[in-house]
Amino acid sequence: MTRSLETAMAAAAAAVEAAIAALLPRGSGPEARLHEAMAYAALGPGKRLRPLLLIEAGHVFSVPIEHTAAAAAAIEMLHAYSLVHDDLPCMDDDDLRRGRPTLHRKFDEATAVLAGDALLTLAFEAIARPEVDPDPALRLKLVGGLARAAGACGMVAGQAIDIAAETAPIDLAETRRLQSLKTGALIAFACEAGGLLGRADAGELEALRAYAADLGLAFQIADDILDVEGEEAAVGKRLRKDAAAGKATFVDHLGLAGAKAEAAALARTAAARLASFDERADVLRALAQFIVTRRA
Amino acid sequence: MTRSLETAMAAAAAAVEAAIAALLPRGSGPEARLHEAMAYAALGPGKRLRPLLLIEAGHVFSVPIEHTAAAAAAIEMLHAYSLVHDDLPCMDDDDLRRGRPTLHRKFDEATAVLAGDALLTLAFEAIARPEVDPDPALRLKLVGGLARAAGACGMVAGQAIDIAAETAPIDLAETRRLQSLKTGALIAFACEAGGLLGRADAGELEALRAYAADLGLAFQIADDILDVEGEEAAVGKRLRKDAAAGKATFVDHLGLAGAKAEAAALARTAAARLASFDERADVLRALAQFIVTRRA
Repeated sequence: MTRSLETAMAAAAAAVEAAIAALLPRGSGPEARLHEAMAYAALGPGKRLRPLLLIEAGHVFSVPIEHTAAAAAAIEMLHAYSLVHDDLPCMDDDDLRRGRPTLHRKFDEATAVLAGDALLTLAFEAIARPEVDPDPALRLKLVGGLARAAGACGMVAGQAIDIAAETAPIDLAETRRLQSLKTGALIAFACEAGGLLGRADAGELEALRAYAADLGLAFQIADDILDVEGEEAAVGKRLRKDAAAGKATFVDHLGLAGAKAEAAALARTAAARLASFDERADVLRALAQFIVTRRA
Repeated sequence: MTRSLETAMAAAAAAVEAAIAALLPRGSGPEARLHEAMAYAALGPGKRLRPLLLIEAGHVFSVPIEHTAAAAAAIEMLHAYSLVHDDLPCMDDDDLRRGRPTLHRKFDEATAVLAGDALLTLAFEAIARPEVDPDPALRLKLVGGLARAAGACGMVAGQAIDIAAETAPIDLAETRRLQSLKTGALIAFACEAGGLLGRADAGELEALRAYAADLGLAFQIADDILDVEGEEAAVGKRLRKDAAAGKATFVDHLGLAGAKAEAAALARTAAARLASFDERADVLRALAQFIVTRRA
């Protein structure tokens, strides 16, 4: 493979951060605080996993990063909003995120709600822009796809189920469904969007979606393993919170060894979903492995 | 004028409520509660002012209500989200809205944050749909316009300034700017969207925007007057809260008589902005007068 995963990750992060910085508002009145909060959430440290997936899915079809970065910025802003709202006191009540105070701790709760709302709104403005793709019909498909992945039958439904699970424990099947909605839907859309920008055909899009489904689940199982085995300093957020909240994780359902085996198996099948693609999919293949071996 | 304002308001409300009901999700799992909360917020009692403006602006160009109701539903869902989040304990902390418990009082705070997020997301999904208009480029223009009106330099900025004003009092000019963002931007977009769907030319769009700017300000001044003179039972929300929160209203800046005079003058100029339109704009003209004489 010509590019290492590390190189690709760094390139995706740099491209998407530049694109986000160009989109963020910079007001001078009393709304300046809101705008600072948006930058704090969207440009803070982060793995930029979803932008990487979109950019690399586009790369499979030779779409240059200069072209995919605009849509990737929209998805990352949407992801950033979801973290801000999930961290709120009335939700997961987290005070640490990516090694820094969560937004409502750094600013205040009202600003956190509003900055999240504004980032969500800006994500839709961003993905509708001509920079994303010259074809208006394709951009509309991205608007609709992003909304479905993020909305009441996607990511927000997953968060609602997650909160409900604190008081009414759920089984393994429902835990899988929760995660496929809460984190899987946006990960799948990131891969699909890269394919759409590359004019992938139906079979190619299906392969990307299958890869994303396995990768998303592997990512979440790895997250649950890190929650048990990880170091807070490296992971950058409070750990062992799920157990305290009474939430059953994949580790609870499968055991630590079982969870590790399932994550590894999913990483292998994720890579195998890309068998019909050439070496331009090597970064996506390497990413599947990285997802389950990361320490943070 | 062939149709009364009352007839037009009832028709707009019925059409937009049917369109919203068709768009709302109806899950059966733990996410059912989220979906119920979305319906509670989007289909509860309300004036449906923004849908009426969009539908009537379209009517000026003979766009039938069957056609404008889809975009109007998107704007009303976006408005509903903004009320849900504005009412949150960390924001305006209201327990009464449109004569019923606010969403976080009826459900819970987490559900209120999530239902707002989901309605905002659904608004963008809705306005991108083919039902809105056959022209993809026009639908993209509506997506971008809605996002700008609702986002960090529009409605959300207005709410941020409003919250900041609780601790740092603002003058009349800044109060006007606050309101032009917090309520004016979406009202203006509603009028503009109706014109766009009717293929209005640049001059016609400008007339609609000017009408909306006057109408939006008149609406807000009337709201402040109602806050002083209104009956809670009729208005359906807690009154006299601004004074308690130390927020300066138009009545504080202009006096009660001055505020009434300004609202009446704005209603007249709003109607005058429509001078170049024929009798199809009569409902919009009547609405300007109604806005400043309403008791609720």
